[in-house]
Amino acid sequence: MPAPCFLIAQGGGPTAVINQSLAGAVLQARALAPGCRFLGARHGVKGLVAGDLVDLGDVPAAVLDAVAATPAAALGSTRDKPDAAYCRRILERLREHGVSHFLQIGGNDSSDTLRLVSEAAADAGHALAAVHVPKTIDNDLVGSHHTPGWPSAARFVAQAFAGADLDNASLPGVYVGVVMGRHAGFLTAASTLLREDEAAGPHLVCVPERPFEMAAFLDAVAAALARHGRCVAAVSEGIAGADGVPIAASLAASTGAGGGAERDAHGNVQLSGSGALADLLCEAIKRGLGAQRVRGDTFGYLQRSFLGCVSDVDAAEARAAGAAAVRYALDGDGHGARRGSVAVQRDAAGALALPLLPLEAVAGRTRTMDAHHLDAGGFDVTPAFAADFRPLLGSGLPRAVRLAAPGVPRVPRVTSPPASGANA
Amino acid sequence: MPAPCFLIAQGGGPTAVINQSLAGAVLQARALAPGCRFLGARHGVKGLVAGDLVDLGDVPAAVLDAVAATPAAALGSTRDKPDAAYCRRILERLREHGVSHFLQIGGNDSSDTLRLVSEAAADAGHALAAVHVPKTIDNDLVGSHHTPGWPSAARFVAQAFAGADLDNASLPGVYVGVVMGRHAGFLTAASTLLREDEAAGPHLVCVPERPFEMAAFLDAVAAALARHGRCVAAVSEGIAGADGVPIAASLAASTGAGGGAERDAHGNVQLSGSGALADLLCEAIKRGLGAQRVRGDTFGYLQRSFLGCVSDVDAAEARAAGAAAVRYALDGDGHGARRGSVAVQRDAAGALALPLLPLEAVAGRTRTMDAHHLDAGGFDVTPAFAADFRPLLGSGLPRAVRLAAPGVPRVPRVTSPPASGANA
Repeated sequence: MPAPCFLIAQGGGPTAVINQSLAGAVLQARALAPGCRFLGARHGVKGLVAGDLVDLGDVPAAVLDAVAATPAAALGSTRDKPDAAYCRRILERLREHGVSHFLQIGGNDSSDTLRLVSEAAADAGHALAAVHVPKTIDNDLVGSHHTPGWPSAARFVAQAFAGADLDNASLPGVYVGVVMGRHAGFLTAASTLLREDEAAGPHLVCVPERPFEMAAFLDAVAAALARHGRCVAAVSEGIAGADGVPIAASLAASTGAGGGAERDAHGNVQLSGSGALADLLCEAIKRGLGAQRVRGDTFGYLQRSFLGCVSDVDAAEARAAGAAAVRYALDGDGHGARRGSVAVQRDAAGALALPLLPLEAVAGRTRTMDAHHLDAGGFDVTPAFAADFRPLLGSGLPRAVRLAAPGVPRVPRVTSPPASGANA
Repeated sequence: MPAPCFLIAQGGGPTAVINQSLAGAVLQARALAPGCRFLGARHGVKGLVAGDLVDLGDVPAAVLDAVAATPAAALGSTRDKPDAAYCRRILERLREHGVSHFLQIGGNDSSDTLRLVSEAAADAGHALAAVHVPKTIDNDLVGSHHTPGWPSAARFVAQAFAGADLDNASLPGVYVGVVMGRHAGFLTAASTLLREDEAAGPHLVCVPERPFEMAAFLDAVAAALARHGRCVAAVSEGIAGADGVPIAASLAASTGAGGGAERDAHGNVQLSGSGALADLLCEAIKRGLGAQRVRGDTFGYLQRSFLGCVSDVDAAEARAAGAAAVRYALDGDGHGARRGSVAVQRDAAGALALPLLPLEAVAGRTRTMDAHHLDAGGFDVTPAFAADFRPLLGSGLPRAVRLAAPGVPRVPRVTSPPASGANA
C-alpha cells in the first residue's frame, strides 16, 4: 500500500483557531504516517479545482505552531458552495494528485461538500477517506456541544461587552451592539458571560431564536432605562420578525442601506459588513423613546479575526479536532467508515470527547439555541447558559472591577432658606 | 495649615487607563500628605455642581489597583463643557467642601475648565491648586509627545487591523475600517503599527489631516486591488473634504443617516456610534469600481473600552501622570504656580518626562499629526511614525505569522490535447 496522501482545505468564515486544526492535522499525520504526503488547497475548494495547491510536507513544526496561533485561514478560504458537478471536478483533481485522504475544515457547508465528494468517489470506485473538521464562530453545528472557533469569538464578544458596559456606565445612555449570527444566537448570548452583577449589562439580549418585535424591544429598553438609568443591548445580526424575514434584510430591501440586497452563494442576504441594523435600532430608540445619547456599534469582522484574543481551551480543542480527523481518516471509526464529521462533545465527567458522526448528520443542518438557555422574558439568557459555556472562554480572563466608595454628605446651601420646622 | 483636601474628576470619553491616573493620584497624595482628604466627583463636573461626591480616602490600595486595571471612568464622566458661569458654580462647591487641590483628568476641554475655575478662584481670593492630568485616545493634546489613553487604543486598533488584514487575505475583497478621530489621525495611523511586510494591510490610511477626495480614494483602492488582489483601508471618522466639512457630517445632513445631525455640547456633529460613513465608502467602492466583497466596519466604542487590551507602557505612564499632578499641586513648579497641565514627553535619552505646562498652552487647542509622519502619496504614514510610536504599544504583542509553503506543480490534464510539437 502506498503512503497516504492527505489534502486539507479550509472553508467559510475564518476563526481565531482554524489554523490550530490545520497544524493538528499535519503534525498528527507526520506522527502516524511517516512518509505521507500532505497537500493544502489555497482558498479551499476554489483553489483545489483550479489546481492551486501547496505542499505542507516540509513546513517546520515551529512554523506550524506559530501559524496555529494566528487567526484567519492560513491557506485562504472560500465562500463557494459546490454542487454535484463542482464536486466531481474536486474528485477529478484529488485523483490527479493521488489524494487518498481528504480533510475539510469548515462549517456545515463544508461537511456537505465532503458528503457529495465522497459519494462521487464511491460511485467512481475511488477509495477516499473524507473527514470534516468542525469550525464556526456561530456554534451552530448539529451534534456538537460547541464548535471550535466559537469560544474565542465568544471571549472577544464577552470582553467587548464588559468594556462597552463600563463605558456606558461612565457616560450613561443606550448602547446597541450588533453581533454576528444569522440563525443562532450563541455568539450574541456570549455577551453576558462576563457580567459581574445584576446592574451590569448587557441588559437586553436579542437572538434570532426569538421573533423580533420592535414595540416589545422598545418597551424593554425603556424598562432598563427606568431601572438602571442606562441600557446596553446585545443584538444578533440575524434577528427576524415573526414572518422569518431578517430585520436587516427588510432594511436592505427597503432602503438600499448596507450594500443593497447583496446575496451570497447560498442565496442569503449579506448581513455583516454594514452598520445599517445598529443604526436602524438606534433611530427607533431615539424616535420611540426620546432617549438621549443612543449609540450603536456593529462588531463586524473583529469578533472573528482580532489578533490577540484567543481562548486557550478553544485552541487546544481545535488542534485536537484536527488530529482526530487524521486518526479517523487513517483508521476509520472501527467499522471502516473513514468518512464523517468530528464532533466536539463532553463526556459524563466533563472531559473532551471527539466522536465521528455521519456526514449526513451535520451537512447542511443548523443548530440553534436550546430553549432552556433562553429566559422566558424574551430578552436574556438563563444561568444554565453561563454554566454550560463560560468555562470555554479559557484562562486569564480580565476582570472589570467597579469602584465602591462612600458618598459625601451634601453641604447645606447657605443660599437655601433655613428649615422652617418639622412639618416643612 | 490644615491638611489638604483634594478633589478629582474625570471628563470626556473614557480610556483603558484613565483609572490608572485616578489611582496614581490618590496613592501619591496618601504618601505625600498623610491625613489629607481625597474626594471624587461622580460624572465629572456635572456631578460636582450637583453635589454628587464620593470619599476616596479609605478605598484600599488593592481596590484602587484593581480599578486602575479596569477600562472606562470609574467615577463616571461627562460631556458637559462648562462656561464661566458653570465654572463659578464649580468653585462654589469646591469652597463648600473645603477643597484646596482640584485635579481634572481629561482632554483639552478639561484643561479649559480648570483654567476658568482657577481664574474664578483667583478673582475670589481663594487659594486653589488646579492641575490637569492628560487623557485622550485621540492623542491630540498640544505640548505632549503622546497622551495617556492613546497607546492602549492604538494597540487595540493595531491588533484589530492585523486580524482584519489576515481575514481579508483569507477571503479577498475590500475592507474599510473606520476609526475614531475627529481632527487628528493618530489613532487611525496606529492601524499600520503591526504590519509585518509590504503586502500586509492596511494598504490605505485616510486621516483628517489630508483633505478627502472620493475620486482619489477610489483610484487608490483600485491600485491596491491591482497590486495585492485585495485592499484594506483605515479611515478616520473625521475625514473631511477640502471645504473642511466632515464627510460623515455631510452624509448626516443629506440623508439623516447616523442619527441625523446630532450635535454635542461643543457644537460638533456626532461622528461615532453610527456605521454610516463605512457604509457610504463601501457603496462608493462597489458602484465606482464594481468591486466584489466590499465590507465595512466601524470600530466604535470597542477601541476605547475593550476589556483586556492595554499597553503596559500606557498604564505606567497614566499612573505616573496622576502622581505627578499631585506633586505639582502640593509643591508647585518651583515658582509656586500650583496650576497647570501635566505633559507627557520624552527627554533626550528617551526617558519619560512629565513637565507642567501652563493651562493656557493646552486648553481648547488641538494637535494634529506632523507632516513628516504622513506619506507624500496621501494614503500612508512614514517609517518615522512607527519609529516614534510603536514602542508605546507595550510588551507582549501578538504576532501574525503567515504560512509559507511551496506550490505543488499542476498536473497536466489528460483531457487536454497532447503537445503537438515545439512550435505549438
